[in-house]
Amino acid sequence: MDKTTIITKEVKDLKNPILIEGLPGIGLVGKLAAEHMIKELKAEKIAELYSPHFPHQVLMLKKGIVRMLKNKFYLWRNPDPKGSDIVILIGDVQAITSEAQFEVCGAMIEYFKNLGGNTIYTLGGYGTGKVVEKPRVFGSATHKAIIKDYEKHGVIFGEANGSIIGAAGLLLGLGKLEGMKGVCLMGETHGGYVDAKSAQSVLEALSKILGVKIDLSKLQHRAKESERFMKKMESEAKKQQSAMAGGVLPPGNDDVSYIR
Amino acid sequence: MDKTTIITKEVKDLKNPILIEGLPGIGLVGKLAAEHMIKELKAEKIAELYSPHFPHQVLMLKKGIVRMLKNKFYLWRNPDPKGSDIVILIGDVQAITSEAQFEVCGAMIEYFKNLGGNTIYTLGGYGTGKVVEKPRVFGSATHKAIIKDYEKHGVIFGEANGSIIGAAGLLLGLGKLEGMKGVCLMGETHGGYVDAKSAQSVLEALSKILGVKIDLSKLQHRAKESERFMKKMESEAKKQQSAMAGGVLPPGNDDVSYIR
Amino acid sequence: MDKTTIITKEVKDLKNPILIEGLPGIGLVGKLAAEHMIKELKAEKIAELYSPHFPHQVLMLKKGIVRMLKNKFYLWRNPDPKGSDIVILIGDVQAITSEAQFEVCGAMIEYFKNLGGNTIYTLGGYGTGKVVEKPRVFGSATHKAIIKDYEKHGVIFGEANGSIIGAAGLLLGLGKLEGMKGVCLMGETHGGYVDAKSAQSVLEALSKILGVKIDLSKLQHRAKESERFMKKMESEAKKQQSAMAGGVLPPGNDDVSYIR
Amino acid sequence: MDKTTIITKEVKDLKNPILIEGLPGIGLVGKLAAEHMIKELKAEKIAELYSPHFPHQVLMLKKGIVRMLKNKFYLWRNPDPKGSDIVILIGDVQAITSEAQFEVCGAMIEYFKNLGGNTIYTLGGYGTGKVVEKPRVFGSATHKAIIKDYEKHGVIFGEANGSIIGAAGLLLGLGKLEGMKGVCLMGETHGGYVDAKSAQSVLEALSKILGVKIDLSKLQHRAKESERFMKKMESEAKKQQSAMAGGVLPPGNDDVSYIR
Repeated sequence: MDKTTIITKEVKDLKNPILIEGLPGIGLVGKLAAEHMIKELKAEKIAELYSPHFPHQVLMLKKGIVRMLKNKFYLWRNPDPKGSDIVILIGDVQAITSEAQFEVCGAMIEYFKNLGGNTIYTLGGYGTGKVVEKPRVFGSATHKAIIKDYEKHGVIFGEANGSIIGAAGLLLGLGKLEGMKGVCLMGETHGGYVDAKSAQSVLEALSKILGVKIDLSKLQHRAKESERFMKKMESEAKKQQSAMAGGVLPPGNDDVSYIR
Repeated sequence: MDKTTIITKEVKDLKNPILIEGLPGIGLVGKLAAEHMIKELKAEKIAELYSPHFPHQVLMLKKGIVRMLKNKFYLWRNPDPKGSDIVILIGDVQAITSEAQFEVCGAMIEYFKNLGGNTIYTLGGYGTGKVVEKPRVFGSATHKAIIKDYEKHGVIFGEANGSIIGAAGLLLGLGKLEGMKGVCLMGETHGGYVDAKSAQSVLEALSKILGVKIDLSKLQHRAKESERFMKKMESEAKKQQSAMAGGVLPPGNDDVSYIR
Repeated sequence: MDKTTIITKEVKDLKNPILIEGLPGIGLVGKLAAEHMIKELKAEKIAELYSPHFPHQVLMLKKGIVRMLKNKFYLWRNPDPKGSDIVILIGDVQAITSEAQFEVCGAMIEYFKNLGGNTIYTLGGYGTGKVVEKPRVFGSATHKAIIKDYEKHGVIFGEANGSIIGAAGLLLGLGKLEGMKGVCLMGETHGGYVDAKSAQSVLEALSKILGVKIDLSKLQHRAKESERFMKKMESEAKKQQSAMAGGVLPPGNDDVSYIR
Repeated sequence: MDKTTIITKEVKDLKNPILIEGLPGIGLVGKLAAEHMIKELKAEKIAELYSPHFPHQVLMLKKGIVRMLKNKFYLWRNPDPKGSDIVILIGDVQAITSEAQFEVCGAMIEYFKNLGGNTIYTLGGYGTGKVVEKPRVFGSATHKAIIKDYEKHGVIFGEANGSIIGAAGLLLGLGKLEGMKGVCLMGETHGGYVDAKSAQSVLEALSKILGVKIDLSKLQHRAKESERFMKKMESEAKKQQSAMAGGVLPPGNDDVSYIR
């Protein structure tokens, strides 16, 4: 496998699909939000993405089988005939280097384009080093003209600065080159721990923007599961760095930094 | 040479070939087991694999000649007309980076597919940091349904956790994407030394699974040879890292960590 | 996106175009000089260059939108019917590795060749660790025969030694392989800070060489803006190195070393 | 430039050409020997090799011009109608990574094959950490059968062990895969300094093997020049590592380790 490969079901007749990205990132904010949406909406898996830029290892699952690291696309068909169908992208990992991120995100954009999509929401955390009672949601968009559509739902533009690293930024950048539009929604977060509260703020904003109801009662519980999984992934990733190729190592108790 | 290259003899009329992988890994468990099988079964070399992802050096042999680093495929034709022919993969090294492992393992899977193969056994060690009298054999498979075939021969599923790094994992992952099935058999091992006893456990399990007798009396002796060779390889690999390109260096007495 | 991509307007009827490169480098000398030229000459943007070898991030701008990192080509049409049209190349970043620099600079040369260009001026600083009242301008050319054309305008040849790293050197090297000629003009500079005075020396020399007047009164002011932007870029680049992929981080107060 | 590129003159009617490689390596033994041969035999340059795997910089020469880093092929036509023509490969640098070395050496082998060549001599130093009065010459060959041809001229086989890193090894390995044969001749050397005496031993052996006379009186003097150049290269290479891309730096007084 030399290139990122997307293995997909045939999906037809999508209504103006939008893409929501929630890959692992700071505070796992985007990941928690996107995974929660998938479960609450009972979205259906339509594609799996594998990449030579992901770590060269398989995970051993409790039931005695292995699986590769991957990203996944889910589809929720909007029952509202005028509403947009929603494609949600989640996954175990992101690629590390610039060249790898461009290759993987390029494959994602191409896939979404083939589905007929045009609008992208990337979800993430905006680390401030502070703990707040009610996290705000910051936004940064591909086009000036679409900002007002999000501002009316409480998303704050022009305040977050710096840069957006990884898929949350690059999908917007590469998408724009393909004529798409989009926005990154960033939940205010400390940055040093998994933040379900920040994910909740992002989901509340997204729910209003999309006009889709999302029950948030199980979010806290799922955040715990997600944290456990990512700590394990983090621990494995560290082992891979230190282990020689081909090694088979037991799980360790390494400090976890992936989610910080 | 820009891609992994397999130079192969023509081999015909294989009976439902299975692949057994034993590249260098933790405790050299897989490598000892696979090399021992080759020698006991008098398997014949059918292909050599070279890769630009292997170290850019040649080994100087005692007899005054050089040879490149490589992986090798051996074939044992099963005299039982209903049995499976066995293809065994061994070698000096594995590739280091993710991209390289995907490329090399992809080439291996393609080669095995062209031989008409469908089932993969990868062999390795499962490091526990403990020394045990009778090492157990853990398994992790590509499909839930095939676990019972191995459990009845004493392989323990669902206990090993963490991840399988390198070819032992990736061949199963990539093979599954090609419609293959397989299992990683991991001998319990300390992880800090070359472990012939663990290799013996793996071979005993494999022997029962395949219904093929393998004499184990020379295993201990061969493990010593293998350890010597790998220590030298390790020592050379370290030199390459520190040496400038193009250097020709004498063998050193560096600490060895490859087999740990 | 697997390769450097140049998105260009159609431009026609160029009169013997020359290329002036001023990407970020030591003391930001080349960048300051080239950006100042663009503004004073009111040059028009004709192309944008994106590359998978640039950092995998987007910048969040004050107005609430994101943009990718890029390089840009500007065109100034010389009103003198006998004069050369001028193409000016500036940008946020340069690629880091050798392979990436060769790929990006190769794309630049190909683009310039398609415009019908043949002559390249690369601008940079020549770090000496000293502060001088009136920075000299050193030159190093592709061909011995063209040196005298620059010497008569005060450029000093044969004194600067060592090597020219990055686009300022590679564009000349790769251009020469395509039959082009050119020179690197290097302003004497301390090397530890952004040096508008050195940029001024370079612009004065370039102005004489090209026979084009350039008002320098606003150079100092613009240098301050450029310094601020690059410090921010530097700070973001550092975060990317330490941050995990996919993180969204606030701007920090890291030490800046990009411009040193 | 995405691949190694060889720019060549047309050369015809070569008589059974052999390749002699002397790129930079330990003690600069191979480089000194090959460069000396070129000068004494008045060999003619027939090709230049450029590679994106070489450092992304140009050298500023005393005469005020820049040049890219490169490797070069020279040709000496043997006046003896039964003798072999000699192609000599020298250069500023070797590629650093495995993938790069495979790519560059692959291009070299292809070029030599197109010239009709079949036999390769790679020259290098064999570091022992000791200073000796009369350095011996060790050999390691591609085929057992050809060893005796070299042994009768005093080359010692089977004593050097370890590995040969870089082009000196890989050209033999890749050449053999293309049906070529060859030998690496290694002059015994301390390893910590430029060793003209070791180069002399190699040249004496080579001279006997090829039946070609080579005057050695100027070797010592040329070794000094070569050492000076390589120290400068080393110093520049270090700067490139620490400098940001695009920097233009003055030559420094860094410690030199390239030739050690």
